[in-house]
Amino acid sequence: MCGTCNGDTNGGAPAAAANPPSQATANGVYPAQGLPKSSPYQSVQDYISNVNSFKIIESTLREGEQFANAFFDTETKLKIAKALDNFGVDYIEVTSPVSSPQSYEDCKKICQLGLKAKVLTHVRCNMDDARKAVECGVDGVDLVIGTSSFLREYSHGKSMEMIQKIALEVIEYVKSQGVEVRFSSEDSFRSDLVDILALYKAVDRAGVNRVGVADTVGGATPRMTYDLVRTLRGVVGCDIECHFHDDTGCSVANALSALEAGASHIDTSVLGIGERNGITPLGALMARMVVTAPEYVTKKYNLKALKSLEELVADSVQINIPFNNPITGFCAFTHKAGIHAKAILANPSTYEIIDPSLFGLTRYVSINSRITGWNAVKSRVEQLGLKMTDEQVKEVTAKIKQMADIRPLAIDDTDSIIRSYHLDVVQQ
Amino acid sequence: MCGTCNGDTNGGAPAAAANPPSQATANGVYPAQGLPKSSPYQSVQDYISNVNSFKIIESTLREGEQFANAFFDTETKLKIAKALDNFGVDYIEVTSPVSSPQSYEDCKKICQLGLKAKVLTHVRCNMDDARKAVECGVDGVDLVIGTSSFLREYSHGKSMEMIQKIALEVIEYVKSQGVEVRFSSEDSFRSDLVDILALYKAVDRAGVNRVGVADTVGGATPRMTYDLVRTLRGVVGCDIECHFHDDTGCSVANALSALEAGASHIDTSVLGIGERNGITPLGALMARMVVTAPEYVTKKYNLKALKSLEELVADSVQINIPFNNPITGFCAFTHKAGIHAKAILANPSTYEIIDPSLFGLTRYVSINSRITGWNAVKSRVEQLGLKMTDEQVKEVTAKIKQMADIRPLAIDDTDSIIRSYHLDVVQQ
Repeated sequence: MCGTCNGDTNGGAPAAAANPPSQATANGVYPAQGLPKSSPYQSVQDYISNVNSFKIIESTLREGEQFANAFFDTETKLKIAKALDNFGVDYIEVTSPVSSPQSYEDCKKICQLGLKAKVLTHVRCNMDDARKAVECGVDGVDLVIGTSSFLREYSHGKSMEMIQKIALEVIEYVKSQGVEVRFSSEDSFRSDLVDILALYKAVDRAGVNRVGVADTVGGATPRMTYDLVRTLRGVVGCDIECHFHDDTGCSVANALSALEAGASHIDTSVLGIGERNGITPLGALMARMVVTAPEYVTKKYNLKALKSLEELVADSVQINIPFNNPITGFCAFTHKAGIHAKAILANPSTYEIIDPSLFGLTRYVSINSRITGWNAVKSRVEQLGLKMTDEQVKEVTAKIKQMADIRPLAIDDTDSIIRSYHLDVVQQ
Repeated sequence: MCGTCNGDTNGGAPAAAANPPSQATANGVYPAQGLPKSSPYQSVQDYISNVNSFKIIESTLREGEQFANAFFDTETKLKIAKALDNFGVDYIEVTSPVSSPQSYEDCKKICQLGLKAKVLTHVRCNMDDARKAVECGVDGVDLVIGTSSFLREYSHGKSMEMIQKIALEVIEYVKSQGVEVRFSSEDSFRSDLVDILALYKAVDRAGVNRVGVADTVGGATPRMTYDLVRTLRGVVGCDIECHFHDDTGCSVANALSALEAGASHIDTSVLGIGERNGITPLGALMARMVVTAPEYVTKKYNLKALKSLEELVADSVQINIPFNNPITGFCAFTHKAGIHAKAILANPSTYEIIDPSLFGLTRYVSINSRITGWNAVKSRVEQLGLKMTDEQVKEVTAKIKQMADIRPLAIDDTDSIIRSYHLDVVQQ
């Protein structure tokens, strides 16, 4: 039990159980990586942290359906649900069955797939929505209501007292049906701190499995996140789920900060698709967490399935995988500058914090540019089975750089320059 | 002068001068935004923070040239330099003139443009490279050397003593030429803390303008960043520049954390292009900082030029702007879910932390999906100049959702459904 909790022991498992200081990072799962061993900062991993025990609530089929381009037919939804299950996510969250007749049918079908992952649906905090959700056979119901003054004024118009009254009724009903229940505020970071802590405390007492903190507008920072979750960790005994939008580019870092502060569950979607520019991307979170908690992440998730999962979703919503996507972006493991390439060839950990082979991927050292160095060219010369002295390699490197100053070079252009030099100079 | 500095007063301006508690966030530049006023977290803005006074070192023409797809001819470089200057960045960093003959010529040409921004070049820490740099007429020389055990073993093979000796010689030379000088370690987060602090202290005494902290492999977290920069802030009196790679999706948040800890300069590139999946993107940093420091950012930077700047660079390196790019992604200001759309129509701040008009952009409320709500449809009905009762709008909304369950709808499909309903039902 977390030393900072208030002692309520209710429906939710205590999320913030003390984790031992990251053994995982020191025991050689990925020893070459270097950060944990040689960094003076490993002590920031403290006892409320869940970085070595977090769970993923995968919301491609809910938040993702709010992405501008998303139109998932039933077949696509089932395919995505199975692929997420194969990847190893803990929960799959689907669109509210109240949204449309097809949403209702699809929710039922996903529940009937018999996945390892639990199926959740995300509904407004009212009795009608909750009843429909339970009807579909979900493992859990995610209740949400806006608590910021903005949403109270411009959206539902309810007071905090009314919100709490409704919440307790709906929670009691869902629990009575033997189904997991989460209660989340919306726009938590712009809500009054005292208001939402009182509300969370009340729903914790009522026995929710999780409370949810949502950065609905994407304005939170890692520090704000740490402060709010850390405070909440001292108020509730149940698990804490966090949901971060990416409007200001902080959704991955905020997820990490939340886990450091004692949150237990992180919402993701594949490639981050969701309202506006979306939420914490599953792949980017994996990139972050495989560095922070290598043993936990490599054992738990089927990392080699990430690329095909992302391709499935990208095709379904007709988008390109961003060029700069962590891990699967086309050049995430491409090394170009001379001083980088030299070191990478000697030891990949010099310029890689993630081993691409964990994700079934490979690295590539570019030798086609004006910033190419002779060590990379030497490696290519050897790959081509040619023999040259270092002086000769330096000379042909100068030729490559000269050509690359004039026009873009492809790898076969560079190979041609090397072969022709070899023919002219070395074999003379 | 920063209260935590060691009292050395040398070449560098004291970066960590106390900033007043963020007046900017309370004085109404973007009052609707809400986060600063209603959040209980504004107190995390503390006196060493530079979030209201940071400078940008824009490295599209250096780090960006290390992007796999980058081949900039002279004309493109000049175009990008001018566009960056028009945006208002403080510094433009270009590829080392030692890299190739054309790099040398281009560096000179950019220096001769007479830009408001200062021109820097980024070179290895040795006398030959520094001489070439000064020869080109740059305003400043950015020296870099690897200090992690990885790089010392697998790259240059130098001891810390040797690194310091060379650094001091090169710094003295650059200063003697009347040119700004920065000294940066490479892979700072995997370097020995005592080693690099000793080195930074020595170069600070030698009068560098800035020291640089580089997360070369992209493995740092906001907490690690805060800790290292905060510690360094107490050791050196000069400015602190930070450079973050994005391998684990934290480059924007790390930049913010660095500024909170007293860093003064952040390296960016347009769309984040650079080695592997790149560094802190200029646009994403603007998204973050316009929320954190609205007055400073809106006054200083020409935000309306962001989109064309990104398009220029994307075209130059033949990439698409990522679908989920902050601010300029195609759906960054598109609202789709019913409960979101309803509130957005009443007050955009409910679901927007950034006002799109600051960047010359507009929002869009989607009404073409199964998760559409009737309030959004009502707004569209009014836009179309039609008159319906709320009951009628709800009825036509159900029809739209029914159709959207079957196939993707375009805006004109939805308009047709509305018009045909109006004709059939309302005008009867």
